[in-house]
Amino acid sequence: AWKGAPLIEGEGGWSFKPRGRLMYDVGFSSAPSSTGRADGFGNEARRARLGVEGDIPGGFGYKFELDFAGGEVDATDAYLSYGDGPIEVIVGQHNNFQSLDELTSSLHSSFIERAAFTDAFGFERRVGASVTYKQGIVLAQAGLFTDNINDTSSKNRGADARLVLMPKMGDAQLHLGGSVHYNDLDDPAASVRYRQRPFVHFTSERFVNTGNLAAASETGYGLEGAVIAGPFHAAAEGFWQQVSRPGALSDPTFFGGYAEVGYFLTSGDSRGYKSGKFDRVKPANPVGKGGFGSVQVNLRYDYLDLNDAGITGGIQNAYQASLIWKPTDYVLFSLNYGKQAYDDAVYAAAGGDTSYSVDAFGARAQVDF
Amino acid sequence: AWKGAPLIEGEGGWSFKPRGRLMYDVGFSSAPSSTGRADGFGNEARRARLGVEGDIPGGFGYKFELDFAGGEVDATDAYLSYGDGPIEVIVGQHNNFQSLDELTSSLHSSFIERAAFTDAFGFERRVGASVTYKQGIVLAQAGLFTDNINDTSSKNRGADARLVLMPKMGDAQLHLGGSVHYNDLDDPAASVRYRQRPFVHFTSERFVNTGNLAAASETGYGLEGAVIAGPFHAAAEGFWQQVSRPGALSDPTFFGGYAEVGYFLTSGDSRGYKSGKFDRVKPANPVGKGGFGSVQVNLRYDYLDLNDAGITGGIQNAYQASLIWKPTDYVLFSLNYGKQAYDDAVYAAAGGDTSYSVDAFGARAQVDF
Amino acid sequence: AWKGAPLIEGEGGWSFKPRGRLMYDVGFSSAPSSTGRADGFGNEARRARLGVEGDIPGGFGYKFELDFAGGEVDATDAYLSYGDGPIEVIVGQHNNFQSLDELTSSLHSSFIERAAFTDAFGFERRVGASVTYKQGIVLAQAGLFTDNINDTSSKNRGADARLVLMPKMGDAQLHLGGSVHYNDLDDPAASVRYRQRPFVHFTSERFVNTGNLAAASETGYGLEGAVIAGPFHAAAEGFWQQVSRPGALSDPTFFGGYAEVGYFLTSGDSRGYKSGKFDRVKPANPVGKGGFGSVQVNLRYDYLDLNDAGITGGIQNAYQASLIWKPTDYVLFSLNYGKQAYDDAVYAAAGGDTSYSVDAFGARAQVDF
Repeated sequence: AWKGAPLIEGEGGWSFKPRGRLMYDVGFSSAPSSTGRADGFGNEARRARLGVEGDIPGGFGYKFELDFAGGEVDATDAYLSYGDGPIEVIVGQHNNFQSLDELTSSLHSSFIERAAFTDAFGFERRVGASVTYKQGIVLAQAGLFTDNINDTSSKNRGADARLVLMPKMGDAQLHLGGSVHYNDLDDPAASVRYRQRPFVHFTSERFVNTGNLAAASETGYGLEGAVIAGPFHAAAEGFWQQVSRPGALSDPTFFGGYAEVGYFLTSGDSRGYKSGKFDRVKPANPVGKGGFGSVQVNLRYDYLDLNDAGITGGIQNAYQASLIWKPTDYVLFSLNYGKQAYDDAVYAAAGGDTSYSVDAFGARAQVDF
Repeated sequence: AWKGAPLIEGEGGWSFKPRGRLMYDVGFSSAPSSTGRADGFGNEARRARLGVEGDIPGGFGYKFELDFAGGEVDATDAYLSYGDGPIEVIVGQHNNFQSLDELTSSLHSSFIERAAFTDAFGFERRVGASVTYKQGIVLAQAGLFTDNINDTSSKNRGADARLVLMPKMGDAQLHLGGSVHYNDLDDPAASVRYRQRPFVHFTSERFVNTGNLAAASETGYGLEGAVIAGPFHAAAEGFWQQVSRPGALSDPTFFGGYAEVGYFLTSGDSRGYKSGKFDRVKPANPVGKGGFGSVQVNLRYDYLDLNDAGITGGIQNAYQASLIWKPTDYVLFSLNYGKQAYDDAVYAAAGGDTSYSVDAFGARAQVDF
Repeated sequence: AWKGAPLIEGEGGWSFKPRGRLMYDVGFSSAPSSTGRADGFGNEARRARLGVEGDIPGGFGYKFELDFAGGEVDATDAYLSYGDGPIEVIVGQHNNFQSLDELTSSLHSSFIERAAFTDAFGFERRVGASVTYKQGIVLAQAGLFTDNINDTSSKNRGADARLVLMPKMGDAQLHLGGSVHYNDLDDPAASVRYRQRPFVHFTSERFVNTGNLAAASETGYGLEGAVIAGPFHAAAEGFWQQVSRPGALSDPTFFGGYAEVGYFLTSGDSRGYKSGKFDRVKPANPVGKGGFGSVQVNLRYDYLDLNDAGITGGIQNAYQASLIWKPTDYVLFSLNYGKQAYDDAVYAAAGGDTSYSVDAFGARAQVDF
């Protein structure tokens, strides 16, 4: 069988599949020149991944993928799994059930970048052990995690859980979810820093940024909702990130969220959905079979508030649009535009103004296997 | 054919097989708090490897594997081979025949970490060219080596040889071996440093440590013995590491060794052995075929003496136990405990005491293919 | 099918192939000791690559390869492609059509290292988008490029084009080509540095070196000619690299080129050629099929002039010879010698002499798949 790359299967439950992805971004950002920040043309290999996955007789399996973008190596999924009926146990590095937008593969997202809060609050894969229960319309996930595989010298230890209901209403797929997160930093010198780029990743400027905050622990709460109905989809999330700070320091709660809608201009196409996440779009009429592939337009309002309890990290209101062309299941091109409006931006423009906008445009070429 | 991953074979002698392994460790170490050393909870991805191996018509072959643990990339085996009857020639990075415990794959070892002397004396794969002769009960290996693939800017050049006899006595497999090693550092500024962690790798503390010693060359001698008889195995090694130091400096000889026994609690199981190394345990009754897999208990006494000729690197006497569960051939879980008793530890406890113990506990989850 | 590794093919146009190479070099260099430069024994893993390539129904494809030599990770080819008849479009990191010697795979080159100008002028793969047209004897290539995948934070943007005619004259394959290159550095702080090692790569000394030159843009022109006639081949190239410098600074033009001839001592063997590049040598009588493989001797005169417009980077005249043994299609061993004669070398020998020679000898073992 082929899933981008060959899925090699053997007797007794053996399987093996290589996997990988390449994403190239090019575009520009435009900030008020009086802020003195770098902007203009930019480009990068956003993701360059290579990995494998497989099954081992007895219910075991593994997934191990590496990202080589940026001249560094970072393990993404790197775990051993065991499945028995509705239960799956995972040990190793994987996502700690943070949010619908974070858990949806970057291959299948509706914009070039995820919602601002996902990066801002430091969502990343972590080393841990988790259990997932999936039966009918219920998905329940819980796990204990330490830190990213590159940071296991930290003493971080946390617990995460997520509950999703995914009923069908007629032909429409609904998604309702919530998650809770706790992370004990267990280090007197520990700090957190929440910040975010203006939409595109090839700039390294951040106009909202809490700076380093001494921190004892983080507690997060997320709410998720989505619907897919034929060519239409909508999704919205909210996430509250609470920081417990040592001694008499205030304990701020920051917030981020978004609401988006999308529509396929090509007939017969729909967003994929599987196991509590958006899944691959498979064009009904792909290039090579007489068609043109799928074309989808998406609009998103994205909000991030890093002001609370005496901390002024800034507020970002972003208005984003994307146009996605998938000529075939495993190839994608997209155009993305975002206007990010700031209050209390961390860089002042002329006259000390911290309320201004930053525009960003990004185009992506993507292949995976 | 399947060997964890598919072994793809073609006409005329072609073959290709992906390979990899993931090992996650979690546990803690406990040192006297008066030493001021970091201890407590720890975890890490101990090994995260991906690679390939293959055969090329005409007797040629290759193996190329990379380890991505710790956010870095290190080549492990990376070589071209040629085989003709009992002779195998290898060019590239491979092990320089250091010891039974070092040469046995980390996948098939009896404890979470190898004997203390193997890390302490800096055993690692090196770039070189070697010849192996294997016929009947005789295995003879010799090669010329420079340094690890990441350190080829050094001027190191050495020679290594190992001789193993591996007779059967009834059903019992015997292993008797010896090796000699010479490494010319060829650099007036060269130094060596021998040190070791207290059993578990996720701590970075070392309580025995010679510090940097100016060195001209290293000479090593190893003795190996082992027996496998049904569910039982025993193994013992000793290794003498001699440092030739420049000018009038003394030339110390350090020593390390261990003795271990192991026993399978599950019937029908036995430790694998192949070509002068312990090999894969294949449970007689694996999970998925109505069984529980194999369960093995192991005990080890491990000794490392870094005191000699005026150098006081410390002495470590370690008492270690492990419990290994293999539900199936390519999955392993283990629990490991070690009490490390020090004399002349390099960190003093209360009252200047350098004789104390450090406890360590480590659990591992492992998959390979 | 097998091409070193298995080429796995599926219905509808799917394909997947792993790929990789290992090259180990050992040898020495010898410079006048009065220059005070490091020389003598050296060795390294010159290339250690692993990657994949594949086809996707609809005309799409990808290639993604990583080099792990030197303890770092560098992406080499990493792109998405689309082909339709004589047209191929590539997006991602690939070679920007620099020269015959640069574009010919290091697997199939006639010497251990390419012509001096290719490294000196900083030829490397870059991120970009290009179109290649190939029909009959015509190959035309043009693209827009930024910078290497590890340097996309630079503002570099350039355009490159190459035209090749590749007619047959009787049984002889001719190659005639030319290329033009422009790269706008778009950064007031940008500089270029052109320099080159004495033939072998395991030394880090460079006896010709312009040092850092403030630069606004680079413009390059290359001419290529080659012929393959049975066991014989000849090739010659010239390349002019012009630097536009900011303000009143002079604009130097540097030059490099080479002429080489080669001959197979074994009957029936010939250099491969495909799509405007030299291609794999496939021994007529390989080891394993009763033969000895192919043996080829090559001679090269190589010239690099880094003196112009007041800049004295030095001149290198190199006389090089190689002996290449390929026991089979995917295995290669070679011996290489080069005498590099310098004028205006950047390191003075005794008495301030900057005209002297550096000898270099390098042996290589290579396998690919």
